[in-house]
This record gives sequence, C-alpha cells and structure tokens, in this order.
Amino acid sequence: MKPFINNNFLLTNDTADWLYHDYAKRLPIIDYHCHLDPREIAEDKKFDNLADIWLSHDHYKWRLMRAAGVSEDLITGNASPKDKFLAWAKVIGRSWGNPLYHWSALELARYFDYYQPLNEENAEEVWESATILIEEDNMRPSWFLEQSNVELLCTTDDPADDLKHHAQIRQEGKIKTRVLPSFRPDKAVEIGSSDFPTYIANLADTSGIDIKSYADIRKALSSRLDFFAFEGCVLSDHGMEKIPFNVLPDSRIEEIFAKRMNGEVLSADEESAYKTSILLFLAREYSSRGWTMQIHFGCRRNNNSLMLADLGRDIGCDTIAGCNDIVTPLAQFLSALEEDDALPKMILYSLDPSYNPQIDTLIGCFQKGPDVMKIQHGAAWWFNDNIRGMEEQMRGLAEQSYFPGFIGMLTDSRSFMSYPRHEYFRRILCNMVGESVERGLFPDDEKILSDMINGICHDNAAKHFK
Amino acid sequence: MKPFINNNFLLTNDTADWLYHDYAKRLPIIDYHCHLDPREIAEDKKFDNLADIWLSHDHYKWRLMRAAGVSEDLITGNASPKDKFLAWAKVIGRSWGNPLYHWSALELARYFDYYQPLNEENAEEVWESATILIEEDNMRPSWFLEQSNVELLCTTDDPADDLKHHAQIRQEGKIKTRVLPSFRPDKAVEIGSSDFPTYIANLADTSGIDIKSYADIRKALSSRLDFFAFEGCVLSDHGMEKIPFNVLPDSRIEEIFAKRMNGEVLSADEESAYKTSILLFLAREYSSRGWTMQIHFGCRRNNNSLMLADLGRDIGCDTIAGCNDIVTPLAQFLSALEEDDALPKMILYSLDPSYNPQIDTLIGCFQKGPDVMKIQHGAAWWFNDNIRGMEEQMRGLAEQSYFPGFIGMLTDSRSFMSYPRHEYFRRILCNMVGESVERGLFPDDEKILSDMINGICHDNAAKHFK
Amino acid sequence: MKPFINNNFLLTNDTADWLYHDYAKRLPIIDYHCHLDPREIAEDKKFDNLADIWLSHDHYKWRLMRAAGVSEDLITGNASPKDKFLAWAKVIGRSWGNPLYHWSALELARYFDYYQPLNEENAEEVWESATILIEEDNMRPSWFLEQSNVELLCTTDDPADDLKHHAQIRQEGKIKTRVLPSFRPDKAVEIGSSDFPTYIANLADTSGIDIKSYADIRKALSSRLDFFAFEGCVLSDHGMEKIPFNVLPDSRIEEIFAKRMNGEVLSADEESAYKTSILLFLAREYSSRGWTMQIHFGCRRNNNSLMLADLGRDIGCDTIAGCNDIVTPLAQFLSALEEDDALPKMILYSLDPSYNPQIDTLIGCFQKGPDVMKIQHGAAWWFNDNIRGMEEQMRGLAEQSYFPGFIGMLTDSRSFMSYPRHEYFRRILCNMVGESVERGLFPDDEKILSDMINGICHDNAAKHFK
Repeated sequence: MKPFINNNFLLTNDTADWLYHDYAKRLPIIDYHCHLDPREIAEDKKFDNLADIWLSHDHYKWRLMRAAGVSEDLITGNASPKDKFLAWAKVIGRSWGNPLYHWSALELARYFDYYQPLNEENAEEVWESATILIEEDNMRPSWFLEQSNVELLCTTDDPADDLKHHAQIRQEGKIKTRVLPSFRPDKAVEIGSSDFPTYIANLADTSGIDIKSYADIRKALSSRLDFFAFEGCVLSDHGMEKIPFNVLPDSRIEEIFAKRMNGEVLSADEESAYKTSILLFLAREYSSRGWTMQIHFGCRRNNNSLMLADLGRDIGCDTIAGCNDIVTPLAQFLSALEEDDALPKMILYSLDPSYNPQIDTLIGCFQKGPDVMKIQHGAAWWFNDNIRGMEEQMRGLAEQSYFPGFIGMLTDSRSFMSYPRHEYFRRILCNMVGESVERGLFPDDEKILSDMINGICHDNAAKHFK
Repeated sequence: MKPFINNNFLLTNDTADWLYHDYAKRLPIIDYHCHLDPREIAEDKKFDNLADIWLSHDHYKWRLMRAAGVSEDLITGNASPKDKFLAWAKVIGRSWGNPLYHWSALELARYFDYYQPLNEENAEEVWESATILIEEDNMRPSWFLEQSNVELLCTTDDPADDLKHHAQIRQEGKIKTRVLPSFRPDKAVEIGSSDFPTYIANLADTSGIDIKSYADIRKALSSRLDFFAFEGCVLSDHGMEKIPFNVLPDSRIEEIFAKRMNGEVLSADEESAYKTSILLFLAREYSSRGWTMQIHFGCRRNNNSLMLADLGRDIGCDTIAGCNDIVTPLAQFLSALEEDDALPKMILYSLDPSYNPQIDTLIGCFQKGPDVMKIQHGAAWWFNDNIRGMEEQMRGLAEQSYFPGFIGMLTDSRSFMSYPRHEYFRRILCNMVGESVERGLFPDDEKILSDMINGICHDNAAKHFK
Repeated sequence: MKPFINNNFLLTNDTADWLYHDYAKRLPIIDYHCHLDPREIAEDKKFDNLADIWLSHDHYKWRLMRAAGVSEDLITGNASPKDKFLAWAKVIGRSWGNPLYHWSALELARYFDYYQPLNEENAEEVWESATILIEEDNMRPSWFLEQSNVELLCTTDDPADDLKHHAQIRQEGKIKTRVLPSFRPDKAVEIGSSDFPTYIANLADTSGIDIKSYADIRKALSSRLDFFAFEGCVLSDHGMEKIPFNVLPDSRIEEIFAKRMNGEVLSADEESAYKTSILLFLAREYSSRGWTMQIHFGCRRNNNSLMLADLGRDIGCDTIAGCNDIVTPLAQFLSALEEDDALPKMILYSLDPSYNPQIDTLIGCFQKGPDVMKIQHGAAWWFNDNIRGMEEQMRGLAEQSYFPGFIGMLTDSRSFMSYPRHEYFRRILCNMVGESVERGLFPDDEKILSDMINGICHDNAAKHFK
C-alpha cells in the first residue's frame, strides 16, 4: 500500500517538489510563538502513553470528538487512556476535510514512522507500537525537539512568572534548542476581570514593587520587562477580543485604577481608557527595547458557561468573535505610536479571516524601512490553520504586501508533537508558489524563489529575532 | 449534440463518478425544510402550463429577469404565460454563472427529458413539448414527488394554522411521500410588527385559549406544539434579521406585552427583551420534546418600499443584511439554554457567508454526545445555494467540525420542480470529496467514503428526524 | 528565453484563447473612471524619464517599497530618479503574488516591447532603453492613449473646477480619445471637513452664486451640473467611508448648514443628516439628467497622521475601513429615491470584499427595465484589483445577477501607463469563462459567449454612456 504520508504529500507540481525537497525541508524550525510548558522542557518530562502525549490538553481534538457525539467521559473524563485513544481513532479516521486529519497523520509519520492515517481499524496496532516506543523511553521533550530540528522556541509567559525553568534550561544547556520566554501581560491589561486585584498583588510580589497606583504598575512592568530581557526575551504577546482606543489623561487613569482596586465596577469607557493607556505604555516600552509586539484579536472565549464551570478554560469552547470595527481603533493606536516614533515591530493575528483584507491593507499604512515588513500579518491562526486558511492568508498578504518578507509559521501549540505543522505549512507554501510558476504567473528563477522560501521558512524569523 | 446534462455533469474525476453513481444517486430525498403548499399536495393540483409550474411564485427567476431589463409586465404582470416564458428563456439562455442556469437545465432534464439548456432558440420547442406533457395530465404534485423519490418533506407552517391539509394527506394516504408540518412561530415573536395584535387574536382562536397575558401566549403556543406533534412535527423554524439577547424578568415581559397590546410603540430594548424571552421559552419546549430548532438569520426583507406596496412580500426584494455581531447574542442564547440542560438540537443558517467561520467555530462550543453534530450549520441557503456557496459552506464545516455528521441538503423552495437541487448538491459534494481523494488528501477507502456520502445525502437526516 | 508576457499569459484553456484573441483583444477601451490629469492631456506633457512616467504619484508602488524596507528617500524623497527606479526594480522583481508584478510586466511589454519582468538584474538595461525611447519624444499622453486604443476616458473633477482643460481638449481635437469630465462633489458633501467653508467660497466663485444657505448650495450645484453636462459629463462619483441615512426636514438642514458656516462643530447626527439630504438631492438631479451615480465606499483614509503631516494625502496610507452596516442605510437611500421615481443608474464599489455578497443581493432589489443591470456592482477596486479579487467580484455578481450586463473594467488610475489593466481584466475574464465551458458548466456557444465578452469589455459601457 502506498504510504498516505509520502514525499509528494500536498505537492502537485515539479516546481513545488524542488522548492520543498531542495530548500524548505532542510531548514531548522524557529517556533516564535507556542504554549509549551517550560517546566516540562526543564524536567524533560517522561510521558506515560500516547494519550498522555497526544490527547491531554489538546482542545482541538476534544472539540472534534464532541462534534462526533463522543461522551465527555472518553474526552476529558475518567475513561482509561487507551479507551480515550480508541475513541479518538474512530473519530479522526472519518474526519474528512478537518486539518487534524493531516496533522495527526504527519505526527504519526514523523515520530512513530507510521505512514497510514489513524482509524478504527489500525488503532490497536498504533497504540501497541507507540507504547513500546514510549516505554523504551526515548520520547521525551528533548527528543521531540531534536527530532524536529527546532532551533529556537518562544514560550508564552506572564510578567509575574519567575522564569526559573527558563533559567534552568539555559544554565543546564542540555538541549540544543534555544528556549526563550515571551511577555504576555494580559492579566495586567484586563482590568475588568474578577481576579485583577489578586493579579496585581502577585505582580507586586514578583517585582518587589509595592503597587498602589497606575504609575506603580508601569514601574513593576518595566522592571519585569528588564528581567525578561535578561532571559533573552524579544517578543511580547497580547490577546484581546476587541481592540480598545480611548485616550484619557493619566490623572483619569489613576482614578480608574483606584476605583477598580476599591472593588468598584468600571464602565465600558473606563475599562477601554485604562486598556488604551497601558497598551500604549507597553508598546512604547517594546519599541525602546527593539522588541516585537504580537496582538491576537477576535476571539470570544469560554462561550459555554456550563462547560466553563465544569472543566475550566482552554477546553474547546472558544469561537471567532462577532463583527466589530477593528480598523478604526487599530489605526488610531498605530498612528499614535508612530507620532512619537515609538511604533514597535508588530505581528497582528486576526481570528476572523474576513478581516484579512482589512489587516493586509492597514499594515501597509505603517511600513517603514529599514525593517522589511515591520508590521506583519501573522500566519493563519488556530481555526484558520488549515490548507484553505493558510493559502488565503498568504495570497492576501502577497497581494497587498511584500511577500518575501513574511515571517512565516509558528505552532501556537501546547504539544511537543505539533512540529509537523511547520512541515504542513512549508508544503502548502511550496505548492502554492510552484503552481504559480507552472501557470506562468511567476518566472522559474531558482535564486529568487529559493531566497523567498528560505526567508519565509526560516531566515526572516531569524533576522526578526536577531 | 452531446447533452449538456449528462452523466458526468459536475463530476470531474473517477472517485466522484463512483461516489455519485454507486451511492448518492440512488438515495431517496429527505427535504426537511421547504415552502411547498400543503393544500396543493392534498388537492394534487392540476397545473395550467409550464409558466404556472415554473415561473409563478419564483422570485429567484423574477430578480434575474429584472436585472436583465425585462419589464415587470412580463415578470409578474398581465402578459400571457407563454410570453412570460419566452422572456424567461431569453434571459436564462445567457445567464452565465448564475445557479438558475444549472437548476433550470436539471429541471428540464429530469421532468421533461430535455437535455439542452433553455435559451431563446429552443424556447418555442420546449414550450410546445411541455404543453403536451402537462395537458396529458400526468404532471401533478404527486407525480413530481414520486419522480423525485422524495421520502419525506417538511412544510413550513404557522402555529395558528389548523394543519387540515396535513391531516387530509395523512388520512387519504394517496402519496408515498411522508408530508410533515414544521412549526414557524415568527409572527408570535415579532412583537414590533404592525399585525402582531391581529395575529395574537388568530392564535387565540385556533388554540381556544383566551390570550390576555404573556403567560397566555406561552400556554397557547404549548398547546399548538402538542397539536403539531400529533401531526408528526419534530422541527421548528425561526427567521430573524438579527439575533436578540436581552434577559429581563417575566414580570417586565408581561408589562411589555401589555404595552404592545395597548397599541403603544415599544423601544428596541423592550422588543429584544420580549423576543429573547419567548425564544428561550420555545427553545426549552423544543428541547423537552426532542425537536430540532432551525434559525435562519441575516436577511433584510422588503428593501424596495415601492415594490412592497405594489407587489407585496416574497417578490424578490430581500437581501443579505448588514454586518452586526451575531456571535455574542447567539453564544449567550445557547449558553443560557445549556445551563438549564434545555438546549435543543439546532440547525443554524446564515444568509451572509462571511459569518460562516463564526458559526462553524461557535457550534463547536456546544456539541455534546450522544448526538452527532447536535448543533448543525445548515446547508448554503438562498443566495448561497450555488456551486461556490455550497463548497465553501461544506469546506468550512469540515475544517471546524465532524463532516460525516452533516445533515445535508434541503430545497427551501416553493416549487415542485425544485428537487433536482438535491441532485445538484450531491454532485457537488461527490466531486469535492472525489477531488480530495485524487489529490491524495484523503485515502481511497470505499467504506469510509460511502458511509459519509450516504450519511450526508440521506441517513443523517433520517436519523435526525428519527 | 520564452517571453514572460506571451500570447497565452493567464489563458489556460482553448476557449479562453479564442475568446480573448478573436474578441476581447480587438475592442477599444472605455475607461469610465480614472484620475488622469486633464491638464497633462491638454498640454500633451513631455515626460522626463521612466521614473517620472511610472513612479511619481503611484502610491501603490510606494506602499510596496515601504513594505520591502526601502527608505523614504528612495520613494518620495530627494534621491535621483534613476536611483528610485533601481530601488523599485529590486523590490518588484521579488514581489511574488502582488498584482503590481503583472501590471508592471504588462506595462513594459505594451509600451517598451520588453517582455521579461523587471528585476535587479535587468534594471539598468530597462532604464537605458526606456531613456532612449522617451528622449526620442514619442511618449506623450497622446501616444499612450492611441497605443492603448482608448475610445473614451472620464476624468474625476470637482464641481468648482472650471473644466478649461476639457474645453481645450475638445476644441483642439488633436487626440482621438474622447475625454469627458465626471462630477465628484465630495467636498460639498463632507460638511465636517475643516476646509468646508473655504470650499463653499470656491464653489460660490465658480458658480457665480452667492452661497448663504443650504438652498444656495443646491442652486450652485445645479448650475455646475448643467455646466458639466455641457462638457459632455454623464457620470458622477462619490467617495465615502460609511453610508449615511438620516432624514431631517430641510429647515433643520438649513440650521445645520448655518451652524457649520458659523464655525461650530456638528454632532455626528447633524453631519449625517446634512449628507443624507445633499446626497438625495444630487441623486435626484442625476436621475433627472439620465446620469449614472458612482459610489465608492469603505475606505478609511490617511491612517498614518505623521505621514499625512509629512507627505500629504494620496501617498499610500489608506486602508479598507472597518465593518459597519452598509446595507441598511444604502437600502433606505435607494428605496427613498425609488419611491419618487428618482433612482438614477448607479455603480456601487466596496473596498471591503467581504461586502460583495451584500451588494450583489441588494442591487437585485432595485433592478428595473428597460435598463439592463441598472444598478451595477463595480469592478474589483483598488486593493481588490488583482486576479483573485476580480474573479471573486465577477463570480459573485454572476451568481446573483445577469452577468452579460456587467459594465466591466476601469483603471481608476493616475498614470497613462495603466491601460494594460484592461488587458489584465480581459484575460482574467476570458480565462474564467473559458474554464467554465471546458468543465461543461456552460455550452460552447460562440454567439452567446462572444456577445457576453463584447458586452462586458466594451459594448455595455458604450451603451451606458450612450
């Protein structure tokens, strides 16, 4: 039987073939945005079984199983790991058109040398052979990272985190991959959240700064920025459902902060004023340090309040948010920073793909040398991380921008088995570019094409993070 | 001349060919949402001519004729049926890219054995041969339904309807197709409509319940739900431009209802509070009965006030509504029901295709076994019911969901000649799936593929409606 | 080496080939919307060099260069024309997927007989040979227009413009192309703009009407409409970020106007009321004259306030605007005019392609014979003027409308070298239609197909402008 995952998987033309095999395939991975746990890396965690590596924490798979009518017991409940795996196998084997079908097949191929897609029929066989490999104990985080040729990865960390696992990884120097933190201060921004006061107390603890005012928060965050920089951080990240822009004087922001710390409820305008102020402050800090600011927007989280109560956050109940005007506040935000010569490099990610044309044209208003593509439209994200979503993000970006400057793929994943998403991206990229050459839409110029592939798959990210 | 409608119409690859001819083609039709007139079925109406069957009530065709500059006289006016038909033939023969081109060609092929597309040249010939067939009187509703292999159809009925034609069809048992009502209580929801008080009076009459309060409406609707259930109904339907969500206590809803019945004008907030309350009530009723709730949203109706005054409703002056946030209220609505364990099975249809990614990801937040795809994203609807619209709806659904659980196609039509839309859908589905196999994106596994095609074309709907 | 720009560029099938070469290619161009400078036409301007013709005023190219990290000095600054050209060549040669890549290649082919795409390697050679051709002085506006077979072009002119260059062109009769003005009264509509009072003074000057009231503005505009009509104008144009609809009585509009002329700031409601009133007035004027009204909406301009201060308007800092509801106000606007039998022919252009389905379905509510496609959805505009954008605009229009009635392409350009955009459009159109025939989706009927191609590429616009 011909392997499903074979050399030409996703490659439909000769140009795609040499672009992928002669160039893209050989490049190391720079995974500049992921949610891997630095502790698991530092401890080089031993996994119990294939379900432990592959199914736990993976809310993409959980959603698909729920859609297929699997009971929660077999998803996040008390069923045995093997039963969970068998339930998963039954579902994925029939999931036509879902990107998990291809991801899973690539993951089995690259880590378990199993080249047929998983399904009900072969589930037992896959479980058994995986069990042997895992018990032989060569499959720890360090093995996955080396196997995947990961040069650099950036985790996602809270300012109040002490980064001790990053320090440990750095000091021990056991793994070849460079592991850097990135700075995600959402909890310091989300003033309306019920745990904001508690968070401020944590931040005060970690930073050693007594936070009594909005000015103190900025001092504490500045101090944490310095600490993160010491650990090699060059990247921040922000998640937000909608983009705020409502400028008020600092004296008003102090009042708003004081009101919130007194336990009072803020108005929507007060919340957005605080958020605008602290985001402008942080962006200026990133700019002065030469960092890159990531903004992930357009996600409405925890939509199912019963599931939130039962299972908590990040369990597969998030969705693309409803339509709102992201261009006006975002343009105002970028323009306010540019006026002060304090616009950092940025990567913007929208969860709603219908915003892609707006983002692609907006970033063009703020590009400025000597950076190539100073403001980036990030790779197709989360629900859009599939063939169609990636092609559309790339085509739109190419139509409106300088495509050879695109910073390329990231996993955004919590799993050490997700690195084949980079292979998936590279095959799709090479195939799309190859097709255009075969159709006479771009010249068959090996130098220009290979420079572009090298840049998008590796070199642009390498330059971006120095 | 090679027939335009031939065996391989829309099928571009071998896998598509066997999926369609060995599986999809043979399956009976379950048309779970249409606007056929139960009276015409009960009386087995005799049609006067091809214009009577084909052009009357068909606002899709009317819109296309208006766009082509045809005078209203030849569309809905006093011109002779034959002249209307000839005007139509002239327009459709040149309508490149419009789905009516293919629909019309399929309809002539399947009911009149005429395999070339209609145009100005052959219009007389088609009219003459159709006239002979119609006058020979074998073309009544019962003939169309049998010819089309329709196993079950669900009409769209008002709670105040007495369903006497459904009872007659059931009791007489003359036709093989099962004809069930579905429950569409829009008039009881649209409290701002000028005829709301009149409608409440009708509902009181039919239900035998004197409606003096909001509690009485609920009683009356409950009683009608029982009556519809007795006639075999398992499905409701709601049409709305935007989704409301504004929860107020029942005592306030009683005041709002009283205010409206007194002839006063309600505020937007009052309207949405009433609508939210009655929709939550109805959804709970559906859930407790095991019914499925359909919601069709995103249509702005009767945009041309002059045409509304001249010709009335449903004459081709409806449009996709403007952008608004549908995710927030819809997520709140579903979550409120889930908290009470009262979320019914649902089918959500958006008229604006740019909402597809939002819907596909939102439904994933509320899936729950043992139902497969408990919350469905309905097939591409109305203006999207074309090759591109159907492919995009299916690809998006597959990317975010469990595609083998998709409930598939419906006609949504007022015409007995619309059943080839199911053939159109099945050919497009088989072609899309076949292409993926030919490109190596899914294994050539006859069992898995044919189960999926059987499910989407027939079995899933059969299970859904028991 | 095979020329990159060759006979079959963009044509992938035989039907496309004969549709393009036997029909589309031979037709003259009607460029019914552009931003060419009538003065440059009247004076038949001598260009200094290739940078002068090709790079100056072209903010599409500037944006791409900024994205590629080129310094502003080499874009709009003081660098030499040749250095600017070399910087441009380096960027464009690598701009995979950007429409400028194809546009530039077509422009070099059609005007300089250079059939390879420009890049870093051949930039010197192209500059040298272009310099010779330009210095031999046969490349003036008249040459470009004749070379491009332009039958008619419509410039974009302010009501306060005296149209003296149009009169000069008409009177001298030196060029074969008919050059007509079009009426773009944005400055009389944008009451909130800081230079509104100054503009009103200019309009009073040109029209000879002392403007003291809103009634006077209407008189002045009426008089300018008559003057434009005398110069052959049959077309107006309006640009707006969002569509207003807020009807107040004329007495209130007079107060709003007086308030603004007194230097007071208007509320958003007052602004939209004024705009609604004057737009309804103008639409009625166009209707009574048989003119066509163009509306370009969905653009947020001058997003980068620093660049606006440094370089001014139209320098590449515009973007697709954020989501808002365009359907409701637009439907109300069209319906209000239709009620008075005063709805002019219209062409609607949306910068945000996610509105395409809304526009395609909305126009269907207002079509009315004897005009074919009285309300048009204009060709893919600005950021959408690329292969994908054009195909999507045409497919969507065809799905919802009568495609043979589409009015087709325009350049919307400031450059005399932009006419190959019509060739680009025609090749894309022929290829798309050809593919459908090859796939059996439309009959291979030369008469029907060639009528359609002739209509869309030339005849429909010719009829539209009589």
